[in-house]
Amino acid sequence: MNILVINAGSSSLKYQLFNMKDESVLAKGKVERIGMETAILTHEPSGKSEVHEVSEILEHTTAIRKVLDKLVHPQQGVLTSTAEIDAVGHRVVHGGESFKSSVLVNEDVKREIKRLFDLAPLHNPAHMLGIAAVEANMPDVPQAVVFDTAFHQSMPAPAYLYPVPMALYRKHKVRRYGFHGTSHKYVSERAAAFLGRPLEQLKLVTCHIGNGASCAAVLGGKSVDTSMGMTPLEGLMMGTRSGDLDPAIVPFAMGKEDLTLGEISSMLNKHSGLQAISGISSDMREIVEAVEAGDKNAKLAFDMYEYRLRKYIGAYAAAMNGIDAIVFTAGVGENSELLRKTVCEQLTFLGVEFDEEANRAGRGQDRRISKPGSKVEVLVIPTNEEWMIARDTYALAQKTN
Amino acid sequence: MNILVINAGSSSLKYQLFNMKDESVLAKGKVERIGMETAILTHEPSGKSEVHEVSEILEHTTAIRKVLDKLVHPQQGVLTSTAEIDAVGHRVVHGGESFKSSVLVNEDVKREIKRLFDLAPLHNPAHMLGIAAVEANMPDVPQAVVFDTAFHQSMPAPAYLYPVPMALYRKHKVRRYGFHGTSHKYVSERAAAFLGRPLEQLKLVTCHIGNGASCAAVLGGKSVDTSMGMTPLEGLMMGTRSGDLDPAIVPFAMGKEDLTLGEISSMLNKHSGLQAISGISSDMREIVEAVEAGDKNAKLAFDMYEYRLRKYIGAYAAAMNGIDAIVFTAGVGENSELLRKTVCEQLTFLGVEFDEEANRAGRGQDRRISKPGSKVEVLVIPTNEEWMIARDTYALAQKTN
Repeated sequence: MNILVINAGSSSLKYQLFNMKDESVLAKGKVERIGMETAILTHEPSGKSEVHEVSEILEHTTAIRKVLDKLVHPQQGVLTSTAEIDAVGHRVVHGGESFKSSVLVNEDVKREIKRLFDLAPLHNPAHMLGIAAVEANMPDVPQAVVFDTAFHQSMPAPAYLYPVPMALYRKHKVRRYGFHGTSHKYVSERAAAFLGRPLEQLKLVTCHIGNGASCAAVLGGKSVDTSMGMTPLEGLMMGTRSGDLDPAIVPFAMGKEDLTLGEISSMLNKHSGLQAISGISSDMREIVEAVEAGDKNAKLAFDMYEYRLRKYIGAYAAAMNGIDAIVFTAGVGENSELLRKTVCEQLTFLGVEFDEEANRAGRGQDRRISKPGSKVEVLVIPTNEEWMIARDTYALAQKTN
Repeated sequence: MNILVINAGSSSLKYQLFNMKDESVLAKGKVERIGMETAILTHEPSGKSEVHEVSEILEHTTAIRKVLDKLVHPQQGVLTSTAEIDAVGHRVVHGGESFKSSVLVNEDVKREIKRLFDLAPLHNPAHMLGIAAVEANMPDVPQAVVFDTAFHQSMPAPAYLYPVPMALYRKHKVRRYGFHGTSHKYVSERAAAFLGRPLEQLKLVTCHIGNGASCAAVLGGKSVDTSMGMTPLEGLMMGTRSGDLDPAIVPFAMGKEDLTLGEISSMLNKHSGLQAISGISSDMREIVEAVEAGDKNAKLAFDMYEYRLRKYIGAYAAAMNGIDAIVFTAGVGENSELLRKTVCEQLTFLGVEFDEEANRAGRGQDRRISKPGSKVEVLVIPTNEEWMIARDTYALAQKTN
């Protein structure tokens, strides 16, 4: 059984084709600059050369058709016919309170995803374009949707509600949803397997630290708290997002700088975080290079980033009354030795015994970076959201047969 | 030497007169409804009957004159002449980055407090009225100002900066200041004395939990982080203030409900917190009563309040890599047995061994509520900001002689 995983953005689309029998990736790639005459298709078939093509791709239906053409291309393809694609799984950012797990797409599901446009105006409409584009090209193939928010729907009310007038929740669904749920769930399961302990008995803090970043408190395999909130702005300091702020800064800055609602949102989402403090980059690799070269602003940005992450780990230890393991994942979490080291060396009070040597070794695989016998274990687990989407889609598609 | 301490609000004024020789309170009281024909003066001279008087008091100069009249009143007073008042100390909420400690009032100081009106528009102008009113009544008496922010000026940059464009800091001084500093400092010193250990060697989390509430991480006697931020809105959930939120909720709610900058500020400062969630009260005593009577919304409000406080204690443990003691103070912190119990019983991972019996005993005095031998000690220390203001004023006034 082959599963095609789609992550559709407003002007881009990523795909990955899995063979579920042996869990292998048959092909992956992306379409960028959808809507332009010079859209770029990058196709990476397994065991064959990478393909780059520039052509006019004005909307998502054409983008999907071009992807399918590549997948069945005599030379560049990996299938003989699109009929070999058994199901398609889509990443959907916002499932609101409606979706506590992945589901097959039907009219009700589409209606509900549209109803949530308000909460994820940049993402959900693009996902709907992806779903419609697949439908137009392969009307009979079952499609599933896998939500970034679903894993966090297990949070209890004291964690997901904000202390603001309840009318905001009742009328406008203002609450904590959390994101990166597919990743937090994946690394939680892998961590339990790696540790050889039942997930049901573990207290984990999972740190998905990429350009966007969030922590989750995972108690017995269920998310009980997470740092992103109603939107992906809350929580940790990120590449270009501020994370936590005194909420009073928002009206204060709007008044002082005469900003519109859109302008303040743009400032906090696109022009804050590492970028704003360092004045150099939103990319942790460049920040660390600049720190090593002695740049003071980069050092300040790094210190704020690390400090805010460390405080969340402490907060979630208090949320669960202890931690068994801390898990680092995603671009920065998997690759920044300096970040992991700086955070963990200041968590000895929790019982973390950090292993500097292990921290420097073994890139790209699940590994332990705490010393043997450390009371709190520290792991690096490369995330694989596409695989999780494929797995859920596979399970749902099998039920329909 | 006698010191008069003044806490001036826009329509009210509290006072307390200390005899510094024996550290006794000679009198205290307040004037309410300043600006009205029916202003109320409440005067409590030590060892004499309380006095209530209703009269027209249209501005602060008259209010101070009435207070001084009471202090030297043949029957109701405690002094023979106002010349026995050696200095006056004022509470000032916002000292910005200019004031790292208490100072005597002079023209430069007054100019600087005015310059900070922008950051504390509700408080600093009222304090200036108090200073001018004392000056008008007692032109020759030295006056000192003691700032809520000063104790937190020791925070390092990674704790006090926000990850937003640096122009907001440079142009508008957007940063974390923190408040309740006089109280956090007082209870830190008292905690060290109680524990019989040098303050320089202690890691404390001080929890000033009143109608407004903040935590501080106090490392070696210096504040290294605190939960209130640029304004007193950030941090813990409070009586009517939200505390921490996804900053994106602010523009979202403004857009949905068509709110002005003033309206959203008012919502988050005056109509959120315990009041909004419980629908019952902003007062923890009434919340706990309702919880005990089985009210579900009160229980939810309590749980959110407790949970958010507990997470801050964990975060500050991570900030300092451990804690020696947790200190509870202020109205709720000193009096809510249930809050202290609920928080501490879920902090066993830190090494807190809570003593339920001690928690129920000894109201009104410094006391230990952790078990003997608890790795992390838990204390209740009644705060006394007025005494701290008197002490600083006394020290400054002595230097002038």
